[in-house]
Formats: sequence, structure tokens, C-alpha cells
Amino acid sequence: MTRRHFTSALALSAFAAPATPRVNGTRLREHIEALSVYGRPPGGSFAEGVSRVAYSDADVAGRRYVMGLMEAAGLKPRVDAAGNILARRGGSDPTLAPVLFGSHIDSVPSGGNFDGDLGSLAAIEVIQTLSEAGIATRRPLDVVVWCNEEGAAYNSGLDGSSAAAGHVAPVDLNKIWNGVKKSDAIRKVGGNPDRISEARLQPGAFRCYLELHIEQGGTLEQAGIPIGVVEGIVAIDRYEVEIQGFANHAGTTPMPQRQDALLAASYLTVAVNETVRREPGRQVGTVGQLAVSPNVPNIVPGSVQLTIELRDLSSKKIAGLADQIRARAKEIAQQTRTEITMRPAAHHDEALATPEIQQAIEAASGKLGLESRRLPSGAGHDAQMMATVGPMGMIFVPSVGGISHSPKELSRWEDCTRGADVLLETVRQMAE
Amino acid sequence: MTRRHFTSALALSAFAAPATPRVNGTRLREHIEALSVYGRPPGGSFAEGVSRVAYSDADVAGRRYVMGLMEAAGLKPRVDAAGNILARRGGSDPTLAPVLFGSHIDSVPSGGNFDGDLGSLAAIEVIQTLSEAGIATRRPLDVVVWCNEEGAAYNSGLDGSSAAAGHVAPVDLNKIWNGVKKSDAIRKVGGNPDRISEARLQPGAFRCYLELHIEQGGTLEQAGIPIGVVEGIVAIDRYEVEIQGFANHAGTTPMPQRQDALLAASYLTVAVNETVRREPGRQVGTVGQLAVSPNVPNIVPGSVQLTIELRDLSSKKIAGLADQIRARAKEIAQQTRTEITMRPAAHHDEALATPEIQQAIEAASGKLGLESRRLPSGAGHDAQMMATVGPMGMIFVPSVGGISHSPKELSRWEDCTRGADVLLETVRQMAE
Repeated sequence: MTRRHFTSALALSAFAAPATPRVNGTRLREHIEALSVYGRPPGGSFAEGVSRVAYSDADVAGRRYVMGLMEAAGLKPRVDAAGNILARRGGSDPTLAPVLFGSHIDSVPSGGNFDGDLGSLAAIEVIQTLSEAGIATRRPLDVVVWCNEEGAAYNSGLDGSSAAAGHVAPVDLNKIWNGVKKSDAIRKVGGNPDRISEARLQPGAFRCYLELHIEQGGTLEQAGIPIGVVEGIVAIDRYEVEIQGFANHAGTTPMPQRQDALLAASYLTVAVNETVRREPGRQVGTVGQLAVSPNVPNIVPGSVQLTIELRDLSSKKIAGLADQIRARAKEIAQQTRTEITMRPAAHHDEALATPEIQQAIEAASGKLGLESRRLPSGAGHDAQMMATVGPMGMIFVPSVGGISHSPKELSRWEDCTRGADVLLETVRQMAE
Repeated sequence: MTRRHFTSALALSAFAAPATPRVNGTRLREHIEALSVYGRPPGGSFAEGVSRVAYSDADVAGRRYVMGLMEAAGLKPRVDAAGNILARRGGSDPTLAPVLFGSHIDSVPSGGNFDGDLGSLAAIEVIQTLSEAGIATRRPLDVVVWCNEEGAAYNSGLDGSSAAAGHVAPVDLNKIWNGVKKSDAIRKVGGNPDRISEARLQPGAFRCYLELHIEQGGTLEQAGIPIGVVEGIVAIDRYEVEIQGFANHAGTTPMPQRQDALLAASYLTVAVNETVRREPGRQVGTVGQLAVSPNVPNIVPGSVQLTIELRDLSSKKIAGLADQIRARAKEIAQQTRTEITMRPAAHHDEALATPEIQQAIEAASGKLGLESRRLPSGAGHDAQMMATVGPMGMIFVPSVGGISHSPKELSRWEDCTRGADVLLETVRQMAE
């Protein structure tokens, strides 16, 4: 469908293509700022962040705006059965698989204006830059804006990309959230829940998937490095821990006779931290949720429930950490005269970026004179679903203060532009 | 008003007084079991405990039962302006101050059948035993059943004894709880809120105050000792601690960059325990209440609020412990890059038992061939209010498993009888 456009781009390239075209950073910024209006808190400014939860009216409006940008860049967007927005720029060899790249524009409630938006609008900017520069590529270029990445709606993140990867349970379409059935929500954004399996991308459907995203952590900013080359998206193991002590009077129960569940939980929280930090590497471990019972000042805590979350690029490594934590929990239970049970609650496999794509991103950065560093992604991304279908690579730009999922989320405009330029270069390289 | 009865008791004593009269343990048990019906869970048994919250219909019924027992023991109970039940057995020298003894019959919700009930019904049993044995005392004997000791109603424990000690704020009478004004609640149990100051006992109003109570801790049971001689009721310091870290993504925030408020809280909870246990003595320290924000598995905790409660017979000692904990908190804050503030929230002075009364209880135990041990009371009691008026002493009996404020609260019947016998002996000794 983009054949006509492709032809005109080819014609332009015959007399005007610069060696290394650059994106228009000012335009990219204007687009990010314009998109931020959809879901902005009433009376707020860009700095107040955005609440553009998937399937909301704000999401629908934002998607309409983005499709308008695609059209302005000469593309003809379509919405697949799962609600993902796709648009193709033709290549000189239409028999080849396309380079697929993009991100998402839905947000968490009270989120920021960079998470997803940057990668989505940079993808469109890449197309527009190529067209303006009259550059044709051998492979087709497919821009994608995934639907419902955050999962703030229906508690089901990576939803559109999951459908594209063939992981969709028909039963999920009956879920109700905010009084709306999931299938109706998909219809609202232009999808077709009855034919959702048609959204699936078969192996070989793309040459590679590329995604530009903010780091969300603070590693790049602290190191003063503008480009992160993602090694992969971490595996996640979540455990639910139940500590059973004995609730008793805090005045009359001597210290040696206590079975204090919160004391045990405290030793365990420290043990999780120490175990995770003792080994070299970038693994993380978090006790993020903890509830005490009966939770009154003058009663020795009788029971505690808490979560342990472990993340690393290696499933094996976090399984080993969990074993160490389990062994420490056993010691702590004996020492505090409590019972501690640690139950696996969720597991997500790691999704490694393809080495060839990592090298391509590094080469692109080098060509642009930008320093880069390899690092894992501690957060989940649509890219992890695409990694189950074909080659995958991700480009990170620095997050100021490592803050995300917050109105305070911020990436400097010059870093956004650099990231988009690296995306452009990598797309060009992979499209040959 | 008990003069006639006193005369007949004297007449009996002329020919029938044994050297060491003993209480009727079977009758005491029957009375405790009979009282347990008022506030018993529907369809439950004695072992299911009791909910006889002050001013409730169950409390009113229980009070009526207890006043009936007093009458059966030859006493004429009266209710003072604060709702306390008082009854006097005359002495041979009516110019002398009486020996005052008793406890309370209100309970916490889902409490046990020994806390308060034992001391109240044993006090009546002492009168009945003396009367049956025809024993007169030189001083009058005043039995008291205090109103609202537990404070489950109006969050105001030691209420009746506080009024008797002259600590009553008129503003408290306007408090609303369960839709009922405090003044109306006092009227419901026969008190007179308009004249509540008349409940006050002036210094010199009694020779001493004695109270038999269950230990609530497990010290006596573990040591196999039937009688505890209370050294005093502990001082309590309560602190509210606020830990401010920074909430961030648990996947993207490297371990060294975290400001994890729950990790800091865990170090602090361990530090409280270690600091309190490091020094010899019977001081206790508890982190009983803790709340995490935002409290989700995949976010590094941004803030934590917790309580620290310290108890010991010496206010100075717990102030010193608080200083050590504050110093540790400062180190933990630096180490975890958090801010920790520790704010005093409540202070209760210690109430020491009078040495002379402690010796009298020990002598009484010795006379009965019962081993005794001195120990602090970690829980609050009406006795602590009476200690601000005159000499005070408390007798403890073992609590099985150290459990109280629970349907599982249990003291063996033989121990209850032994405690009542020691009360009887001590009353006789102090009444001379």
C-alpha cells in the first residue's frame, strides 16, 4: 500500500541523499509535546505528566494524533485485530521481510511523557527523515505503535505485542475493567477481537524488531553516556513469603520468648538485599510489599506477608539467588522461632537481544560519534515479546535521575534526538 | 453500712477462726465460669473466651452478677460516680484507713476469662472466706471492681481507676464511641458523670492497694513458680518513626542507587531488637506497627512509618535505649541514603510497688509454702493509678504459654486458688 510513496522516495534519493541523514530533533520534541496533551491532568503542563491508560478516551485521542503524524509522513496506518497501529514504507525489494520498529503510547496513571512516546514518535520521525532526505531502503520499513503495553487496564501489560507474538488467551477477552469488557475495549481502539489471532506475526515476519526507549534507570545518566545498547530484558521471579510467628502482648512477653514475625521479616529483607548485592553483576532484588498482622504498636507481630522480586538477564542466576535466600530464610526461621514459607508466584523468562543487532546499534552510535554502553533492561518492553518471534534490539537514552512511571520522568531533548538518530542509522543498516 | 455484718463476723471469730484460713478454690472457679457467660461468643464455651467491653450490655450484666456475689458474701456494693463498684467489710477500728483490693471485669474484644476476672472474684472470695471463718480484721476491707480498665471503649484504659486517682479530664466525658457519649455510658453502669470528681480517693484514703492478676507473660510458668511479686508496672515510651526514601522502578533501579525505605526499616527493626537485648535486664522493645508506601511488589519502597515501643521499670533505662536506637537510626539513614525521624508519641511513667507490700506478699507466700519470684509487670494495671495515691502491691499467677488478651488466655485453677490464698494472707497482714 505504500508502493506509490516508495517510488517517490526513490526518485528523490537519486539526487539529494546525504551520507548520514539526521532526524529533526525540534520536530520530534514538538510531536512529543503535542501528544502529551492527550491525558494531561486538567490545567496542568507538560511537567505534570500524563494519564493515558490504554483504551481510555485519552488513548483513543492520542492514537488518532499519532496516525495523523504517520499520514503526514506519507504512511497509511492500519489497526490490526489486537489494536496495534502498523504502517509500512515500502522497500526496493518487496520480497524481503521488513524492519519492524516502534513502541507504545499508552501510559500508567500519572506517568511521564517519554516512556513509549519517544520510541513511537521517533519511529515516525525516522520515516519522515528518510523521505525528506529521499533515501530508499532495500527492505520495507514497518512502524508499529503497540496497544496496551503498560497493562494499567486489565492488568495485562504487553498485550498488543503479546497478541502479535501469538500469546493471547481468548478467555482474556471477557475480562471486565472499569465496567468495560476487554473485547469491547479492543473494538473501541479499532481492533477486532473476533479475529485477534490474525494479529499474530509468524517467525520470519520481520528482519528484526528495533525499539528506542528511555532507560528508566539511572545508569546512563550517571555514567554520562548518551546511548545504551540493551543486552536483553531481564527474567523476573516473584515469590510470596508468609511468616508465621505468634502475636502476643508487647509488654508482658520477654524478649527471649517472642516469636516476632516482623523481626523475622526484617532479617529476611536485609538478607535479600545482602544476597543480591554480594555477587558481581547487575541483578536486582526487592522486597516491595509487606503487611503486618495485627499491626498495632503494643502487640508482638504474629504474622507477616511480603513479596520478593528478583531480576537478572539470567533466569539461572536468579534461581540461584532464590536458593540462597531460601537457605537464609530457614536459618532466620530457626533463629526467630517462626515459620517461613516462600512460594513462587510468577516467572518471566529473560529475552536476550540478538548479538548482531546489538553490534549494529553500537556501529550506528559509533558512526554518529556517540559513546554507547551495553546494559540490561530491568523493565519489561514489547521488545521481549518480539524476541520470541525474531531478532530483537533496543536502544536506550538516559533518564534524568533514573525516574520513570512518574510525572517527574524526564529525558533531555538532545538525548532524545541522539537516540532517534541511532534508531535511524540502525534501521538503515538493518534494512540493507 | 457493713457494720452489722462486721459484728456478726467478730462474733463468729470468737470460737472458730483457723490459724491460716484458705479460700474455696472450687467456688472461685465456679464464679469465674459463671461470669464468663456474660460476653461469651454465641454458641461458644468457656474456652472461646469473652468479649465484655466496658459499658456494653455484657458488661452491665457481668457487673450485676458480681454485685450479687458481693451481696452473697455479706457486702453492700455501691457504684461510685466513675462507675467503679466498691464494697466495704468493716474492721474493728473504723478510724483506720481500709485495705483496698480488687481488679476489673471488662475485657478486650475476644479476650480471655482470667484477665481482671480472677482478681475481682478472688477479692470477693477473700471476704467470703474471712466471714465463713469468722475472722475479723482491724482495718476495714474495701473490695473494688474498676470500670473500663482495658480501654477497648473510648480508647481510654484505666479509666475508673484514673478517676479514683484524680486524673480525669471533663472533656473526655464528651467522647463518642459506638454512637454513645461517654457520660451516657457512665450513667448506663450506674455512675454519675456530673459528680465524677467525687470518685477521687485522696492520699491516705487506703492503707494500701492490692491486686491479684494473671502474669500475661510466660516467666512464672517457665520457671515453675506459682507466685509473682510485682516490683512495679513498667514505664512505656512510644515513638513514631518516619523513613523517607525514594520510590522507584524495582527493575530499572540498580541496587547501589536505591533509597529503599523498607530496607532501612528492616535494619532499624533489627537494631531495636539487638539494642534492647544487648543489656541485661527485663526491658522489652517492639516494632509492632509498620506501613510501607507505595507497597507494591515492583516498586522500591519510598517511605515507611513504624512504631517503636520500649518498656522497663526504669524510665531512665528506656530513655537510654532510645538514645542508642536514635544513634543507630542515624547510621542506618546514612548507609541506606534515607531520612529517618523518630518522634516521641507517648510516655507513661513507671509505677513502683511499695517495698513493704512486696515483702508482705513474699511473707504470705512463704507462710503458705509457695515459692515466689519478684518480676516487673509489662502490662498496665489499675494498680499503677493507685500507686499515685498510696502504697501498692500486686500478686501474679502464671499464664499458660504467656498468652493473654486472647481466648487462649489460661491460668490453671490450682494457680488461681494459690494466688487468691496469697491475696487473703496479704490482706489479713496489711489489715492489722
